[in-house]
Formats: sequence, structure tokens, C-alpha cells
Amino acid sequence: SDSQDLDLAILDSVMGQLDASRIRENLRELSKEPHVASSARDEALVRLLLERWQDTETGLDSAKTSEYKVLLSFPSQKQPNIVEVVGPNGMVFHSFQPGEKNLTGEQVEPNVLQPYAAYAPPGAPKGLLVYANRGSEKDFEDLEKWGINLEGTIALTHYGGVGRGAKAINAAKHGVVGVLVYTDPGDINDGKSLPSETFPNSWGLPPSGVERGSYYEYFGDPLTPYLPAHPSSFRLDLNNISGFPPIPAQPIGFEDAKDLLCNLTGASAPATWQGALGCDYKLGPGFRQDGSFPEGSEVKMSVHNSLELRNSSNVLGIIQGSVEPDRYVIYGNHRDSWVHGAVDPSSGTAVLLEISRVLGTLLKKGTWRPRRSIIFASWGAEEFGLIGSTEFTEEFLSKLQERTVAYINVDISVFANATLRAQGTPPVQSVIFSATKEISAPGPSGLSIYDNWIRYTNRSSSVYGPIPSMGTLGAGSDYASFIHFLGISSMDLAYTYDRSKTSARIYPTYHTAFDTFDYMEKFLDPGFSSHQAVARTAGNVLLRLSDSLFLPLNVSDYNETLRSFLQAAQENLSNLLQQHNISLGPLVTAVEKFETAAAALNQHISALQKNNPDPLQVRMVNDQLMLLERAFLNPRAFPEERYYSHVLWAPNTASVATFPGLANACARAQDANSGSEAWAEVQRQLSIVVMALEGAAATLEPVHDF
Amino acid sequence: SDSQDLDLAILDSVMGQLDASRIRENLRELSKEPHVASSARDEALVRLLLERWQDTETGLDSAKTSEYKVLLSFPSQKQPNIVEVVGPNGMVFHSFQPGEKNLTGEQVEPNVLQPYAAYAPPGAPKGLLVYANRGSEKDFEDLEKWGINLEGTIALTHYGGVGRGAKAINAAKHGVVGVLVYTDPGDINDGKSLPSETFPNSWGLPPSGVERGSYYEYFGDPLTPYLPAHPSSFRLDLNNISGFPPIPAQPIGFEDAKDLLCNLTGASAPATWQGALGCDYKLGPGFRQDGSFPEGSEVKMSVHNSLELRNSSNVLGIIQGSVEPDRYVIYGNHRDSWVHGAVDPSSGTAVLLEISRVLGTLLKKGTWRPRRSIIFASWGAEEFGLIGSTEFTEEFLSKLQERTVAYINVDISVFANATLRAQGTPPVQSVIFSATKEISAPGPSGLSIYDNWIRYTNRSSSVYGPIPSMGTLGAGSDYASFIHFLGISSMDLAYTYDRSKTSARIYPTYHTAFDTFDYMEKFLDPGFSSHQAVARTAGNVLLRLSDSLFLPLNVSDYNETLRSFLQAAQENLSNLLQQHNISLGPLVTAVEKFETAAAALNQHISALQKNNPDPLQVRMVNDQLMLLERAFLNPRAFPEERYYSHVLWAPNTASVATFPGLANACARAQDANSGSEAWAEVQRQLSIVVMALEGAAATLEPVHDF
Ligand SMILES: [Ca+2]
Ligand SMILES: [Ca+2]
Ligand SMILES: [Zn+2]
Ligand SMILES: [Zn+2]
Ligand SMILES: [Zn+2]
Ligand SMILES: [Zn+2]
Repeated sequence: SDSQDLDLAILDSVMGQLDASRIRENLRELSKEPHVASSARDEALVRLLLERWQDTETGLDSAKTSEYKVLLSFPSQKQPNIVEVVGPNGMVFHSFQPGEKNLTGEQVEPNVLQPYAAYAPPGAPKGLLVYANRGSEKDFEDLEKWGINLEGTIALTHYGGVGRGAKAINAAKHGVVGVLVYTDPGDINDGKSLPSETFPNSWGLPPSGVERGSYYEYFGDPLTPYLPAHPSSFRLDLNNISGFPPIPAQPIGFEDAKDLLCNLTGASAPATWQGALGCDYKLGPGFRQDGSFPEGSEVKMSVHNSLELRNSSNVLGIIQGSVEPDRYVIYGNHRDSWVHGAVDPSSGTAVLLEISRVLGTLLKKGTWRPRRSIIFASWGAEEFGLIGSTEFTEEFLSKLQERTVAYINVDISVFANATLRAQGTPPVQSVIFSATKEISAPGPSGLSIYDNWIRYTNRSSSVYGPIPSMGTLGAGSDYASFIHFLGISSMDLAYTYDRSKTSARIYPTYHTAFDTFDYMEKFLDPGFSSHQAVARTAGNVLLRLSDSLFLPLNVSDYNETLRSFLQAAQENLSNLLQQHNISLGPLVTAVEKFETAAAALNQHISALQKNNPDPLQVRMVNDQLMLLERAFLNPRAFPEERYYSHVLWAPNTASVATFPGLANACARAQDANSGSEAWAEVQRQLSIVVMALEGAAATLEPVHDF
Repeated sequence: SDSQDLDLAILDSVMGQLDASRIRENLRELSKEPHVASSARDEALVRLLLERWQDTETGLDSAKTSEYKVLLSFPSQKQPNIVEVVGPNGMVFHSFQPGEKNLTGEQVEPNVLQPYAAYAPPGAPKGLLVYANRGSEKDFEDLEKWGINLEGTIALTHYGGVGRGAKAINAAKHGVVGVLVYTDPGDINDGKSLPSETFPNSWGLPPSGVERGSYYEYFGDPLTPYLPAHPSSFRLDLNNISGFPPIPAQPIGFEDAKDLLCNLTGASAPATWQGALGCDYKLGPGFRQDGSFPEGSEVKMSVHNSLELRNSSNVLGIIQGSVEPDRYVIYGNHRDSWVHGAVDPSSGTAVLLEISRVLGTLLKKGTWRPRRSIIFASWGAEEFGLIGSTEFTEEFLSKLQERTVAYINVDISVFANATLRAQGTPPVQSVIFSATKEISAPGPSGLSIYDNWIRYTNRSSSVYGPIPSMGTLGAGSDYASFIHFLGISSMDLAYTYDRSKTSARIYPTYHTAFDTFDYMEKFLDPGFSSHQAVARTAGNVLLRLSDSLFLPLNVSDYNETLRSFLQAAQENLSNLLQQHNISLGPLVTAVEKFETAAAALNQHISALQKNNPDPLQVRMVNDQLMLLERAFLNPRAFPEERYYSHVLWAPNTASVATFPGLANACARAQDANSGSEAWAEVQRQLSIVVMALEGAAATLEPVHDF
């Protein structure tokens, strides 16, 4: 009936049926072979997903693929990328082809893609080696400050701190001609670096492990910004693409990095630049006299990557809603990996398939059909820059913006066994809390996922007191275009580390040929109980969003974000702003208006809930809840930030944790030589935020009053 | 109840109660005094509207004002704008202050604003006079081609052809230092120019009549593009404003223009440049030897306009919907005039007030409440550039886009007594047809408004056969930001001329001090029966939109537009495009997809109508109908065209009547020296249209299928 509400018995039943051993079997199948985007195995997995979702007993109402023609980047099949040390006489002293040693048999399988920096241009730069820490803008500035001439050098950097592509972009600005990127054992292995201390003997990254990755600075298909990458679509000329590394880049393992780094000459790098390779890191340029290489030796990189237009598919599986089929809850993960990708992304897809199996079974039995439609998605080419999901949002922009209730992303479902980690926009906090309070945490604690979570990651909320702390959404996975481009309330869920036990940037074998099924089973989630916990959490959230009569999105939970942004502005910027006759008063008023309207709407909902509301009354309120996030979009706010239109969550590259447009504009205006135009932009950004908040408040106010 | 549908008895009753004599009384009051935007009388009319809409017996549920601080432009109170002829020795031979002669007493009332070109800068340019026809780019190019040095000249132009501001912008590009704009009797009076042939002896423009107007090229408050003009909003620096005339400009009457034009020297202007002033129009530069002025005499303009930040209000009157209060039908007109503004805009406001009175009375009696909310709006500062309505759409962008069913605009309600004129986007055609088929046309014909209309303006539709021909929406009145910026289906309604009887550009006293109540009553609509006809049409459309269970918007009526655009592209551009390897194939496919989806949706609606649909089924379909127009918006399609985001209705400045982005890009690419970038833009614009059509089709497809 039109007043169909969440059925707790169904919810319980689903929780009970989500099966760890089936998730394990899914993972084994999904990670059996390397399946980089557009490869034959990637296409085979497309068929696997279609089969699962079209199964007559466990499948969904329908499933289909949608294909895009996108620009990917691959290393040459014929000429491996090589790094060499070349003596002053031109003799090659040392030559290595970055790649993993065969430790478990899987590293030499035929379809293992050798390590490379996707979208880094081909080339054979040669120069003296310098050590440039993490390759941030400041790192290169510091090197120059310390008197090191970067012109024509090769920079050795380590992962972390700034994005992959940024290292090459920053380097090129300072005259560097090639960039090597390695993984320091201090960043990933809690300092451990010996074969005996690393996989397959522990979860640690072996010395030969190399992190692959996309070095593209934006996301989406690089040739078709704001247009779906259909075969006939307009494509940028390759010369007009921005965001690719301007110079060759290549990732290497720490074994190879050590040979280079521990032979450098020059001054010692500062303490904060030192790592765990067991030598004193010098800055260069060039190698020391008494080391492995003759003085004057240079490093030569030979990079043979090429850009290729490839077909990449998304797979969509649909459960049609019974009452409001035009409201969509979307649940997705990418399918493509760099190598076997057991953790990334198959641990997420294994969970996705188990959830869709359990729901599909209920559906086919006729036991259940959700109030709203559910769309399961397996995105293509995420590793190259969230491409499949971005093209999807471009293709169906209007339909998705009008009808999508929320987007749930589970990429890597299990980083580790300690605790839930949730990122999302404030309106989804309440539904995640409701779900996690009901589900037992894995392990012997007897706690709920919620009670376990709060032990690891918590904050003191001015509204709720101590609660688990949710993270915010950057552009780390396929939720990016949903939240930033379309303004759809989104979340990302996973199980993760005990941060008191490891400081690893991420699980150590990330994006290497050691990210295998055995790695997951032995070192991350032996009983698959964390997988099960994530499946239950995501499944529970999914059912609540698709089945609850009133949408479980609490718009008032934006208040704390707004207050914290406001307070940061007041504390850090108001003096400065006053000096330029810019008042935060209108912003204060706008935040207050938002709070008042949100509280009144919640009261209205409470009253309705008690009074057997008619279907249209519920629908009207739900429309307000669903569309709130859309009111924060302004496609004209940050035209230079591709896809970022959400005025609260656009990248904040400044130091003040306030509204990003305001923060960034203030930081730029504070530059010594910035004039009145920069301050005008500060005022403009302030007005944009005020307009967004007032516009959002207006959507929450009683609908009949205009 | 939730299935409340249009009540034909109520509709009939409303039609019967709309009273010509009350409209007449409204008009008398509204046009009693000059009421230019932000004047005391304009504010008094704000109070009048509030009183009417807050009346306990005939008012609405609520009424309120919303005020914006906007940049207007006014002539000096102290120094009148003057045009002089100055002899070579510096002696002034002829001096006139443009302005109307006192023919009826009303032209010398204290608050009559003397003629000026709003937003034209102050200055005192002096130079030889040239005649530049309508001041189009081509007109100035022709003058140069004919050997006339425009540098330092004053250009005399006549209204028509291109926009007001464009005349000054084009002139300045060619070195002209000042622009005079007059109204040629050939354009406005069917050639008549004698006092005995003009008002108050006929509807003709008297020789001293001067058309005022805004010379701003864009619309909305010039200082706050894309932001509501609240007191605290960011405002552009005056130096950063684009779209203002770069040189002084001044409108004059044809009496004064004749003195100048008929004394010019030089070659005769071509036949198409000749007008009805009774002399051979020469091109100049300068005056002829044997004329009224010494050879070498120059024209000097003294313009003392100034920019002023003023408060301008919109007035909103609300009837809350009974079933779907969150769906808005908006009906608006501007309130501000240039002088008394009996025709423009008060004839529209007189109708608006009569409709709101009749509906308010039913409401207060408890007889009726519409299914959806109705918002009546009286916009401020339209004459300066659609400012009030634009600020409104900026302030409430999200709310309006989510919830507005349609916007009805009735500015000048009666230009003349012959026939209805309707402009709008295709989905509103059907509801206008339904309404007009039911209402009698004024006059003795006995025909319905529809049957009368089709006699004057018709076309042969491939779907319907002969039907009245609707016009498209430019930016001529307050619908502009609704359709172009927000993508809300909009229409503009009026009664107008028999084009076989007059070729006047517009009613002759437009924007002059002769646009008075007596003028309306004597010459345009003596019995106010055309006002009544417009009130009935607009009221009928309004009730159908707000009360029908299924929205009376026919999305299939977009097919003819798409087909005609497609055909124009195929006939005029496909060879050219083929030469640049651009195929129209994807566009053909997209149009077909749209047609198929629209037809299927209409079938689905027909089926629902027969089967006692539940309220949510109706709502879902209505959301598809309401939101179709939104799917044609792309805020990134034409970033240089402020506010224009609708990919079908953005300005097409090219000669091919196809999709505007494609047409304009092709025209630019065809320029001799345009390279591959211009052709890339053609391909990009083509992809933008294809994406919009496919995205729109996707919103019409069955909602449960994704
Ligand atoms: Ca794209
Ligand atoms: Ca504005
Ligand atoms: Zn991933
Ligand atoms: Zn990854
Ligand atoms: Zn008007
Ligand atoms: Zn006007």
C-alpha cells in the first residue's frame, strides 16, 4: 500500500542471511585474475555480474550494461618502463624494470600489468637525482631555498602527502624532467622492510611491491568533461587536456628506491623528510663519491606509456520500487582493479553481490519488494579516475538529480578488522547510526558496530554528546560525482584499522600485485566477519533508505557542520575580513535561518508521524529531505574546479576549516601582491555561501507558504 | 481529497465573474500617476497590491513584499539632457530638450520622467551627424563601406531591428561618440506624422513622443549577476560591468529627428533605410549647405544620467494548494512603468488584480481552494531589465526549480482588439488551446478566442493540421529568467493587432508620456472586452494548471520544435558539417528517442486516467511532466550568455533556425579565418544538444526501469 513502511522482520531476516562464506567465495572468484579496466577479465566480470543479477532465483528485476569509450593509459606491452643509472661516460651501471618479485606465484601471471604511472607521458628524461620528499609544492620550494638547482633533474619522491599527479605537476614547475615515486616503509609498513617481515610473512609490503595508480588530476574521462563518453561525443584535442602529468613519472618499490636514495650525495634531508630505508636520506643532486655509482652518474627513466581509447562498461542491476519506483537508492562499487585487486575493489564487490543475492532471493520469492527502487552499480575504470561513475552521472544528470534519494559506496570493504569507518554528508549520519546500533561487531567484544566504532573514532557533538565521528567525502572513490557534481547525499562505508596499532597510509599491498585473495584471507579478514559486518551495515542502510515511509535523512545534522565552518571563519578570518569591510553578519543570519527551518521541518515530520499521514503529505516531506543537498549546488561557484559544485564540500586548500570557497578566496587574497579583485572574490564567495544557505533554508520551510 | 480534479463548474463561475468594468477601474487607479521603479507612486502601488491581496473578503491566503537593492539609472533632476546643433564657430543654432508636448495635461505632471536612455553614460559628445539606419552592426559596416568616416561622429538611428543597447555598442565599435535614437513614423504610425493624425486624434504617436527604455544588454540587476541583490550581497565594481552602452545615447521624437535628418548632407541612404519623415534621408556626415544649419555644424549631446542604488520590491500573493501545496503555478507581471504606463504594464496588472479578486473571493467564501499553490507576483523594475523577477529567481532558485509547474506572464494585456497572441514553450500549447476553445472572443463574431485566433495567426502542424501559431520566448518580459535561467515552462499572453491593418512595431505610444488611461480607453480597448478576454484566458489556464489532477502539459508537443530544428540543420548545415567530419546521426537518434519516450508517457497517462490512479501514481507522472523543461538546461553550455541555460531557447544569432548552440557555433566556424577550434566548438555544441535530448528522453521513460 501507499503507506508501506520499513518491515523490521524483513530487515532482521536480511541481516541473518548475509553470509560470510558466500562473500569469501565471491571474493575468490572476483580476484582470481587481474582485471584492469577494459581487459578481457574485466569484461568477463561484467558478464558474471549480469548473470548474477539476471538469475531467476537470486537475481533482480533487470540488469544491463552501459558502455563508454574512454581514454585510458597503459604501459607498452613490448617495451617495459625502465629506470637506469648511467655513468658520466654513458655506461649503464644499474638498470631495473620496476615490478614485483614472484613471492606467491600470482605476481608472474600473464595479465599482471607492470607498474606504471597512468597518464604520465612517455619519454626518456635523464638527469642528476634529487630527493624531493613527498613532492609537494613546498618540498620543491624548500629544495630551491636550500640552494639545489632542480633544472634538468630527476626527482625521487615517496607516496603520501599530496596526490600522485600533483608530484609531477609540482616537479615540472621547478624544472624537474622526470619523477620517480616509491613507497617508503616508514609510510606503509610501520618501518618494516625485510622480506621476512613482509608479505607473505606478514601484511607488510614486500621490498619489490610497487603502488600503481592514476596520475590524472581530475576525474571522469579526460576527453569528455561534462559530456557522457559515447562514441559520437565531442572529445577534447589531446593538446587541450589539462591535469595530466607534464613530465614522465614512474612508481618504484622501496628496494629499488633504496639503491638510489641511499647513494645520494649532498646535504642531509631534514628529519621530517627521513624515512625507514635504513640510511641517512641526502638531498642530492647526484650520487656520492664512495657509493655504488660513479660520481656524476645520472638517472635515466624510459617510460613507454600510451593513451588508448577503450570501451569500459558499467553494470546496473535494478529492483523496481513498489510504491515510489521513481525514487532511487543507488549502491555502487567499481569493478576494475590494478592487478588481482582482492582488497581493492573486490572486497567491496563481494559484499555488493552478497547483498544483491539476499535481496534478489526475497524478491524472486515474492516475499518483499522495496518501497523505492534500488539500483546496484558496478562501475568501470574507477582506478583511472572514477570514470564509469562520472560518465553515468553525466549521461543521466537530470533523472538522477530529480530522483536519487542517496548514494551508498562500498569500495574496499575491509582494510582491517578493528572498526567501522564511515564518510558521508551530514544527512546520512542518522541512518548509519540507526543501522550500526542494531548489528553486532565482529569479534568477541559483544558490542554493536556502533558501540565498537565509538571506541575508535569519536567526537563530542554539541547536539548528541559523544558519538562516532564520520569523515567527509573527498574524491577517493565513485561517490565523488554523486556528491560534488549532482549534490546527492552520499556515503562510503568500510571496516578499517586500529590506528593505535598501525600508522600505515593504507593497507600495505594497495595497488600492487600482492593484493590477492590469500592476502585478504590471511592478513586482513580471516573469517570474513568484517566483510559480513560491512554487508550488514550497508544492507541495513540500503533497506532503511529504500523502505522507510519517511526518508531517514536528518537535515538538522547539517547544523554542526555549518556551525563549525562559521566558528572557524569567525575565529580565524573575521579580523582580516573586517579590515576589508567584509562582514560575516549575513552568514550568521543564514546559518540561523537554516537551523530554524530544519528544526521546524523535523517537528512537522514528528507531528505527521503521529497522525497517519496521507501518501502525498509523506511524499512532499520526503522531497524536501531528498532535495536538500541539491540546494547546496552552484555550478557557477567554482568554474575552475571541474565537477565541484557543492558549496560546502568543494576542495578546501587553505588552512582554515571553513566554507571552502571562502577559505580559498581568503588565502589567495592574503597573498602579498593580491589587490582589490582578490578581495572582491572573497566577498563574492561569501555571498555564494549565504545564497546557498538561504536557498537551502527556503526549501526546508513550510511548502505552502512560499 | 487527493484525487481532487479540475471542477468545471468553478471554472465556468470564474469565467463569468471576471468583470470588464472592474478591470477598467483597476487600470484607472494603476495608471493615475507615473510610477517608475522605486518612485513614491511605485511604492504606493506596492501598498495597493498588498491591501488587495490581504483583503478579508476578496484577498488571498497571504501577501508579502520582498525588496532588493538594485542599480537603476535616472536622468538628472537638475540638468536636463539636451541635444544641440552647434555651428562651426561654436554658436548654438538649435537646442532641444527631448520630451513630450502637453497634449492632454498628463505630459506635464510633476513625476513625468523626461526621456532618456537608461544606463547610457553621461557625457557631452560632439561631432558631425551621420544617419545609421537601425544601428545594426551591418548598418555601420555599410556606412564604412560607402566611404563614410565614422570616427568622432554622432549617429542618428531609429528604433527597431536591433535592441536599444546594441545600437550604442555597435556604434562605439566604429568610433561613433554619441547615439541618438528616434521613432520613425514609418515604423510606428503606418507613416502618419501630423498632429491631426496622431494622439489625441488617433492612436498614433505624436511628433514629440519619445520612447524611453533600458539600454542595458543583459537582464537582472547589473551589479549582482547570479546573486540576489540583497543589501549585503557582493556587487560588481562599476568598472567591471559589461552590457552598458559605452557612449552617451539619447532617444528623441520624430519631430526633432526630422530637423536633424532632413538637413543631412551626403549621399542618399538606400531605399531600405528611408523612412516616413517626408524628406530624402541622406547619410551625412554633417548638414547640407542649403539647410537649416550652417555647413560644418555639429551635433552636441549633453547627457546627465546617473546610476543609483535603489530599493525595488516584488509583491507576492499566495493561495495555498489543498492537495499539493508544494507545487506552484506562478502568475506575474511587472508593476513599474516609464510614465503612466496604462498599457505597459498596467493593462496586465489590471487583469491580474481582477483574477486574484475573483479567486480570492471564492477562497474566502470557502467555495474553492486549488489543488496546487498559486503565487501571484507583481515584479519591480522590469523596465530597467527584468530586475525584480530575475532577483526572485536567483533568491529562490532551488525551491522554484523543484516545485514550479509553470509561469504565466501577462505584461501588456491589450495591444489591440483583434486576436490573442501567445508565446511559450511547446508543453503549454495544449492548455492554452483548451482554455481558448472555451471562451468567446470579444466583438460580434461569435467565435471562440481559439477560432478567432486561428484566423489571424496559424500554421499547419504535422500533428494537428491547422492550428494557431504560438510564438517563442525571448527576453521581452519577466518570463525570461523563468524559462532561460530556471527551465520552467512559461508563457506570455496578450490581445493584439490585426496585422493587415497596421505594421506598427508596437502600439505607438509605447514607453512615452502618451501611454495613458484615456489612450487605452479611446483607442485600444474601449469596452475593456479584450482585457476581459485576456483575463478569462489567463484565468482559465491558471485554473487548469493549478487544479487538474494530471498536469495539462503535453510533452509530445516538443516534437515539432525538435523536428523543425533538426530539419533546418539537415537542410542547411549537413554538407558543411560533413566536410568537417561531423555527423548529425546522433542528433537524429536523440530526437527519435525523445519522440518515442514522450509518446509512451502520454499513453501511460491515458491508461492511468481510465483506471482510477492512486495519488502517488499521479504525482510521479506529474513530476515527469513538470520537470521535462528542466532537463533541457545546461548551465555550462553558453557561459558567455548570462542566464541563458536552456539549450533549445538560447539566443540564435545565426541565420539557420536550428538548435541555437549549433547554429551560432556553425556561423562562427564558417568565418573565413576560423580554425579547428571553432569546429571543435561546433562538435561540442552538437554533443551538448544530443546530451540534453537524451537526458530529457530518459526523464520521460518509465520511472521504474531506470
Ligand atoms: Ca565525460
Ligand atoms: Ca542579481
Ligand atoms: Zn577502489
Ligand atoms: Zn584503487
Ligand atoms: Zn512591460
Ligand atoms: Zn515596457
